[in-house]
Formats: sequence, C-alpha cells, structure tokens
Amino acid sequence: MPDVQGTSDTRRVPIDKVGVKNVTYPMTLVVPASCTGDGSSGGESGEQSTVATINMYVSLPHYQKGTHMSRFLEVLNEYSGPITPGQIPEITEAIRRRLGAADAHFEAWFTYFIRKFAPVTKMPGMMDYRVGFECRAGPKSDFMMTVRAPATSLCPCSKEISQFGAHNQRCEIEAKVRLKADGSCGTLWIEELVRIMERSASMELFAVLKRPDEKFVTEAAYENPKFVEDIIRDLALELDREDRITWYSITSENFESIHNHNAYAEITRDKLA
Amino acid sequence: MPDVQGTSDTRRVPIDKVGVKNVTYPMTLVVPASCTGDGSSGGESGEQSTVATINMYVSLPHYQKGTHMSRFLEVLNEYSGPITPGQIPEITEAIRRRLGAADAHFEAWFTYFIRKFAPVTKMPGMMDYRVGFECRAGPKSDFMMTVRAPATSLCPCSKEISQFGAHNQRCEIEAKVRLKADGSCGTLWIEELVRIMERSASMELFAVLKRPDEKFVTEAAYENPKFVEDIIRDLALELDREDRITWYSITSENFESIHNHNAYAEITRDKLA
Amino acid sequence: MPDVQGTSDTRRVPIDKVGVKNVTYPMTLVVPASCTGDGSSGGESGEQSTVATINMYVSLPHYQKGTHMSRFLEVLNEYSGPITPGQIPEITEAIRRRLGAADAHFEAWFTYFIRKFAPVTKMPGMMDYRVGFECRAGPKSDFMMTVRAPATSLCPCSKEISQFGAHNQRCEIEAKVRLKADGSCGTLWIEELVRIMERSASMELFAVLKRPDEKFVTEAAYENPKFVEDIIRDLALELDREDRITWYSITSENFESIHNHNAYAEITRDKLA
Amino acid sequence: MPDVQGTSDTRRVPIDKVGVKNVTYPMTLVVPASCTGDGSSGGESGEQSTVATINMYVSLPHYQKGTHMSRFLEVLNEYSGPITPGQIPEITEAIRRRLGAADAHFEAWFTYFIRKFAPVTKMPGMMDYRVGFECRAGPKSDFMMTVRAPATSLCPCSKEISQFGAHNQRCEIEAKVRLKADGSCGTLWIEELVRIMERSASMELFAVLKRPDEKFVTEAAYENPKFVEDIIRDLALELDREDRITWYSITSENFESIHNHNAYAEITRDKLA
Repeated sequence: MPDVQGTSDTRRVPIDKVGVKNVTYPMTLVVPASCTGDGSSGGESGEQSTVATINMYVSLPHYQKGTHMSRFLEVLNEYSGPITPGQIPEITEAIRRRLGAADAHFEAWFTYFIRKFAPVTKMPGMMDYRVGFECRAGPKSDFMMTVRAPATSLCPCSKEISQFGAHNQRCEIEAKVRLKADGSCGTLWIEELVRIMERSASMELFAVLKRPDEKFVTEAAYENPKFVEDIIRDLALELDREDRITWYSITSENFESIHNHNAYAEITRDKLA
Repeated sequence: MPDVQGTSDTRRVPIDKVGVKNVTYPMTLVVPASCTGDGSSGGESGEQSTVATINMYVSLPHYQKGTHMSRFLEVLNEYSGPITPGQIPEITEAIRRRLGAADAHFEAWFTYFIRKFAPVTKMPGMMDYRVGFECRAGPKSDFMMTVRAPATSLCPCSKEISQFGAHNQRCEIEAKVRLKADGSCGTLWIEELVRIMERSASMELFAVLKRPDEKFVTEAAYENPKFVEDIIRDLALELDREDRITWYSITSENFESIHNHNAYAEITRDKLA
Repeated sequence: MPDVQGTSDTRRVPIDKVGVKNVTYPMTLVVPASCTGDGSSGGESGEQSTVATINMYVSLPHYQKGTHMSRFLEVLNEYSGPITPGQIPEITEAIRRRLGAADAHFEAWFTYFIRKFAPVTKMPGMMDYRVGFECRAGPKSDFMMTVRAPATSLCPCSKEISQFGAHNQRCEIEAKVRLKADGSCGTLWIEELVRIMERSASMELFAVLKRPDEKFVTEAAYENPKFVEDIIRDLALELDREDRITWYSITSENFESIHNHNAYAEITRDKLA
Repeated sequence: MPDVQGTSDTRRVPIDKVGVKNVTYPMTLVVPASCTGDGSSGGESGEQSTVATINMYVSLPHYQKGTHMSRFLEVLNEYSGPITPGQIPEITEAIRRRLGAADAHFEAWFTYFIRKFAPVTKMPGMMDYRVGFECRAGPKSDFMMTVRAPATSLCPCSKEISQFGAHNQRCEIEAKVRLKADGSCGTLWIEELVRIMERSASMELFAVLKRPDEKFVTEAAYENPKFVEDIIRDLALELDREDRITWYSITSENFESIHNHNAYAEITRDKLA
C-alpha cells in the first residue's frame, strides 16, 4: 500500500506544526499527599482521573509531503497510567522520536478538582479548575503550566462612592507559568498555584456554603475590595517571589455585574530577561 | 441528472423535521419609532441590521426519500430586505409551499441592540440582547419569540445575614412567549419585552456608566435584593398581566459571585389552559 | 441567623424548577463486562471516572420564599462512589426528600469512553461520546438517557451524479431514549445504544486508523451512502425493534463538507401512544 | 465624588493591558466596489452592517491605581458610522489619547458576508466568514487582520489507497496577516484574502448549490486532493508572493470525517526577518 505521506515534496516550505487537534482522551494525574490546598503538599499520595482535550504536533521538513497522524495516537495509548506533570516532557519527547521530527509539541487541557472546606462550617466540597500543560521537545524544549481559577472580585470604586453595598462578581484568573528548567526547586503542584491565585482576589470560591459561611465570604469580600488591576498586580508580586517560576503571563477577567461586558487586565513578565 | 431525493422510500418512516441548521445569514429588522425602551413604542421608524443563525425544516412524508435542501436557501435569499417580526409567519409559509411540505419550521437567533441612557448622567450606550424567533407553518401554525436579557441580581439572604455588603452578580433572564394568534392586541416589540424583563431583576445593565451612575446602580440593587426565585416570580406576574401573551416559559440563571456554579429557576405557564 | 429562604411568600406563584445549574463534579460510572461495544454486555466489571456537568432542581410551592441551594451539593457529595445509570433515580429521590419538595430533577452530562479496535489492523483506541441522564422524582417520575455519537455520512446524491468521488463528512447523531419503567427488560448500557446508533450511519469513527483501516472505512462509506434522512430512518427502525425503549427522540446533524451549514433531521416517537 | 482609579499606587507593578473585553457592538464596514470576490476590487462602493465582539485595552503605569473603563465605550460611540479597515489605527489612537496611555490595543471580531455565485448554475448565496482586526497604537504601533475561511479538504492518501471514493470534510483555514506599514501597496480587502485562502483548499464552499453545482464541486475536490500540509504550504506560497503582506501566521484545521479529532497544520513567517 503506497505511503503518500512519505513521498517527497518540492515546494520547499517547512511546516512549523502539523498533527492532531482536539483529541478527547482519559487522563489520570498523580495527586500530592495534601491535596486540600493547604500549600504544604509534599509527596505523592493518590490519583485523579479526568477527561483531557489534547493537541499533538511535530515540525515537518520541507522535503517531506506529510506526517503520519496515527502515530500520535499510538504514543498516547502507551501513557494510559497515572502521570505526574513531570512526565509531560517524556511524553513529548516520545512523540518527537516516534514521528522522527526535529520538534514536537504536546498540549493538554483538563478539569482538575481540589477538595475544599467551607470557611466556617468546614463542609467539604469539590472545586473545579481548568488546567493546561504545554510542552515542547527538541532543540528549544520548554514546559508551561496554565491554571484558570474562578474567584470573587468586589469593586473598590463602587464601595467608596456608594452609601451601602458594592458591586461584585465572579472573575476568572488565569496564570501561565514556566518553571525552572533544571527542576532544582522541585515540582510546583497545581494546588500550590491555585492557592497563590485565589489569595489575589477579593475572596475565593467554594462549592458548598452554609449560612455562616455565606456571611463570612460576603463580609470578607466587602473588606477586601479589588479592581481587576489590583488582582493582577498582587498576583504578579506573589509570582515574582516564587523561585520555581522563571516566566509568567497572568490575566484576570471580571464578569461585571453592572455591565454586559468584562473588565480585563494582563501582565507578562520574563524574570530571566 | 437523476433526482435521488425525489425517489420513493419504502421504510414507512415519516420524518418530523428535515432541513438546514446553523445557516449564518444577514438579517435586517424594522425598529419601532421609540426604540429607547421607554415602553411607548408605536409606529415603525428605522431599521437595524444584524447577523442571524437560522434553522429551516420541513416534515417529510414516509414515501419520499429526501428533501431538497437548496430550496431553503433560495427562499431565504428572497427575504433580504428589512423584516418585522410579523413577517416571520409569511417566510415560514413560503418555505412550506416551496418544499411542498405539510409542515415548515423557521428558527432565527440574532443579537439585537437597544440604545439606553445611563440613569444619572444620561450618557448613551448600546445594550445587546439575544433574540430568537420560532415559527411553524401548517395545520398547527405557531409563533414564539424569545429574549435573553442580562441583568444584576443581589442576594437577599447575603444582605440580611451580613453586617455590610451583599453578594451580587450578572444574571441572564430568558423569556419565551407565544402571542395571541389573531394579533388583535397588536405587536409586542422586542423593546417592550426587554423592559418587562429588566424590571424583574435587582437592577438593569448599561453599556456606559460614569461614577454618579455607578453609585446609583450599586445603591439601587442593594435596596432591591432578589433571589432567583423572586426574579422569576415577579416576571411571571408581569407576563400574567400582559394580554398579548397567551403562553410563556421563563428562566433566570444567576452566575453566583460566591460559587463556580449558577442559581437557576424556571416557570412555564399556558394562560389558555 | 435568619432563614430568609424559609419565610413565606405571598405572590401565589409556584415555581416549576429551582436549583443549581452547571455544577462541575467528578463522576464514576460502572462499566459493563464487555465494554468494547460488541453488544453482548452482561454483568458489571469495571469502572470509569469522568467529569460531569450537573443540574439539580426541585419544585417550590407558592407559599415558600426560596429553596436551600447548598443542600443539593450535600446530596451530591454523598454519592461519590462508582454509580450505575440505574442509581440515578435513587439520587434524584434523595434530592427530593432532602429539599422537602414535591418534584426533583437531576441532569448530568459527561464524556464516556469506549475502547474500539480498528477494523482491519485491530489497533486499539479510545472513542469519546457525550452522554446525558435526565431524571425526575415525584408523582411523574421519569428517566431518560441521551447519547451523542459522531459518525461518517456520505451523500447518495453526490455519489450518483458525480463521475467519481462523493462528498462525505463527520455527522453527530443524538438519541434520547426513555426506558421501560419496570425495568423488566434489563439495563440498556451506553455501549449498546452507541452500537445501534453507529450502525445507522455510512460508517462509524475510530480514534486510531492505519492505512489498511483507512482504505476499509473509505470504501465501506462509499458503498453505504446515506442522506441525513436515511440515517435517522434506519435508527428509528432499530429503536422501534428495541423492547427496552418506550419513547425516543433522535436527530442527526451532518457537517456538510460542501457548505458552511449543516443538514439536519429529527424524529420523535412515543411507542406507548 | 472620589476618583479611586486616579489615586496613586505604590506596588511598582506596571500593567501591560487593562480595559474592557467582550463588548458586543454594532459595526458598519465599507465594502469595496466588486465585493463578489473576483479579486479586482478597487474603489469603495457600499457598506455592510455586522455585530462585533470588541476588546479595548491600554497600558497602565506602575504609579496609577486604575484605568477609567467607561471612556473606552465613549470612544466607541463616536465611531458609529461606516468604517474601513484603514480607520482602525485611528480609533486605536483615539483610545490611547482619551485614556492618556502610552499604549492602546483595539481588537474586533465579526461575521463578514461575501455574495458568491454557484459554479455552474450561478445561483447567488451569502457566504459567511469570521474576520478579526488587532491594532496597537503607541511606540510599537501595529495592525493585523485575521480571516477564517471554511473550505473542503479531500485526503490524497485515502484517494490513492482506496478503489473508489476518498474521505473529505469541512476544514477551517485561518490567516493572520500584517500589512506593509507605509500602505504603499494599497489596502488588502477581506475579499482578496478570502479568495487567496479558498484557492489553497481542495474546493471552496457555497451557500447554495443545485445538482449541477454539486456534481461540479464533488468532482473538482476529488481531482484536487490535499493534505492539511498541502493546504498550508500552498497558502504560504501565495502569501509569500503578496507584496502587501510582511508577516503571516496561517493554520488549517480539518474536521476529519473518519475521526472524532482534527488534522491541523501551522506556519508562521516574518518576511522582513
């Protein structure tokens, strides 16, 4: 059977990325010992199964007509057990070798759950976060993790100028971070990044809140008003202090309760530059 | 050239709806004289162009193999000028006749803009609403209009139990209504339904708000706390009083600022039952 | 602390559904012994973890001001172990009792994976399907399962009128079915419904296809051309024959490769009517 | 009334972008004289109204607490008449000045319609494309236009290895281009870029196709098989030859009719590098 993809191409146009996009696949992640978001996470203790949306690409030299798409899926099949974020570079390198490419890219987005306890009654609940991994294998290898954490923002201007009340709303904070390449500072767990992000908002969210909890979060947010600018600046200061992170791009989008559009802020910083 | 669709079918399975879905098409709507949402709309005065997502279906008898999909688009091409909601039944009937069907269905969703003025400074701004028409021609002819209006909801429980502040958020109210078939009560304009819906929330939204306006909407929402249950009940009472409406299905979804999930309520009522 | 929700309401407007929407939660499903879609599934054998989007509602009598939203989440927390579709009515009834309501509704949507083998090389791969459960507890208790299965459709008209080739495309088939209430005919597993649905298309999809497989599916689809009308009629005939199903609503949406809109067909049938 | 945003900030963290996101607004575009996509477009002749999703941001110096969000909307209100792509830099500069910022960013996404005629019967139809403008005013001023054009792709491997038929599917091609800053080569109209993009696929799409047209597009696609790699390479060669373009990033995503995932390719090239 002829291998059309393997024939030669004469257009002299190399391709940066070619592969499969929007592959829905089961993924199992190793969860650190203390997964309740208390920041003290150390060893590995359990696992969490989720559904990932995955993109896998390689570079294609100008002289080759096509890549072999089914091989991406074959590599994926081989990593069906529980994985740690630390294994993503290994999977990406496996793709690069299997496809015989100079560069390979692996991207995965999934929902990640963290068990959180209501602030007063300590009722448990599962909070969901969207998490992404983007990895590159080859001469310019790279690995970045993205977390999207929803939170509460309460407007300082509205509070200041109004006799009572203040408009507040759900916001979505996103942090994309690059970790120290030599790993000399250890793993940054999803739980740790989530905690840093939630601290930057007026208040964090919970799945279950009883009345004493609702009183607590309402008053706490009112006493901690933050513009979208404040959220992003406070998060930037925290990430500046975190030695495991060498580069970050952070955004906050506030779904304003008084408008049908959103307030937005963004900071990108390369700590090595 | 053979007409495969026109051949006969022996499976004895009639089809309820067959046609084209997700057609993106330009649509121009007639706008009433007073389009600023003051409720006094009377004559026709202008027009508004928008982009519609359109579905068009017919019923297919058990003995016919297929429908002729291109004819739906041909009918659409013939209605390229400004239309009023009142013309939708005519378009649907034209589809029914062109396709030689017993029943025809026409559905259109589009963004509709209403010019609104900020409550204190009177600064103008364009507010966007999602509007849908669903029409059926044939023995059981029908016409329904749907409007989605975003608004502010402020939680009565949070206000009551907290020393200061109250959680509030953007909500989305949706009303699907069936109008009196004989039209004896006149047209119900989109602007009128929007006003009724916005009155049911803690506060309406605006595109542009200066500081005196922000103070106004913050305090007004705080003094008008509403659960999702209150919004939907107050809207139901208003629609009960509106003689042009014979049936309605209304929902409100509040994007809670303290949770990552939404509060939701729904009432459906047939006033003729 | 005052219970605002528990106070009485004087508007005399009962609410059909009120509760929480768009809750993202982990869900673990029991998987039947033969989960490879060979139709012979009998006992229970394993489990599959996924991420569900869940809505939970109750009816609210006219005299009560509000429902207690946090209780929905508390019930959800109690069902964290592996569940079978057969347990959904039990969860829904638990919600009804906990909220002290006449009616309760439970809806869950999630991705479900089935291991499938390529038709010639027998390479394994994971195919993803969207599955929904909708359950009602109370005087009018009900349970419906929905499956969305992607497949290939190849146009009979294009094949007939063209010298060579035929336009084909991915389509999405959806079947919502109501099962016999007394369960006398046994469970209908997701795997079984998927198989019935995929048989109705020109060809089923696979995650991994090597060249001999690609030749097979290309030729098989070309020899099995189907209009959207054919897919929906063949599926209707299969569901008519399936005794465990008493009602169905089925659709197919074909993402036409020659248009920027979709072909669509729909049949709803109550076998008990 | 205090101006909280105008107060000073001591955190010493400048913000790259802050402003409003996801503003839905009406937009009217000037359409070139020959808008039927024949490539000979010269003068200006008509206009087209559409609905835009707009983002507007400015940079914020480290010493200022917040930006003034309502001013973005005020600028938008002043440009309510028909605009050409050439006016986008002017709007962006107006934002920069009104907000007193070093940098301003303006992004708009909208649906754009082009009237196309079926290849054989010449039946007219409206094809829809998604178009984006991204503009930056300030020391590093910039302007980029993005067009997404759907088309047909037919797999060369499937055609080669199969006795008959070949899998084909809708694909979405995207081109983001930067134009020569001095405008010395004239405007690149949306219609021109669409034509270049559609030529790169196996076949272009139409809204209305009668049977002779369907035969034509089926056979033409079969005789013009293209991998996602071929589409992207042929498009790269065309854009290399277009003097008005100095930089481009192009992608194609093919919604494979035999898989539930997509084939994807991407090339980015800076012609000035």
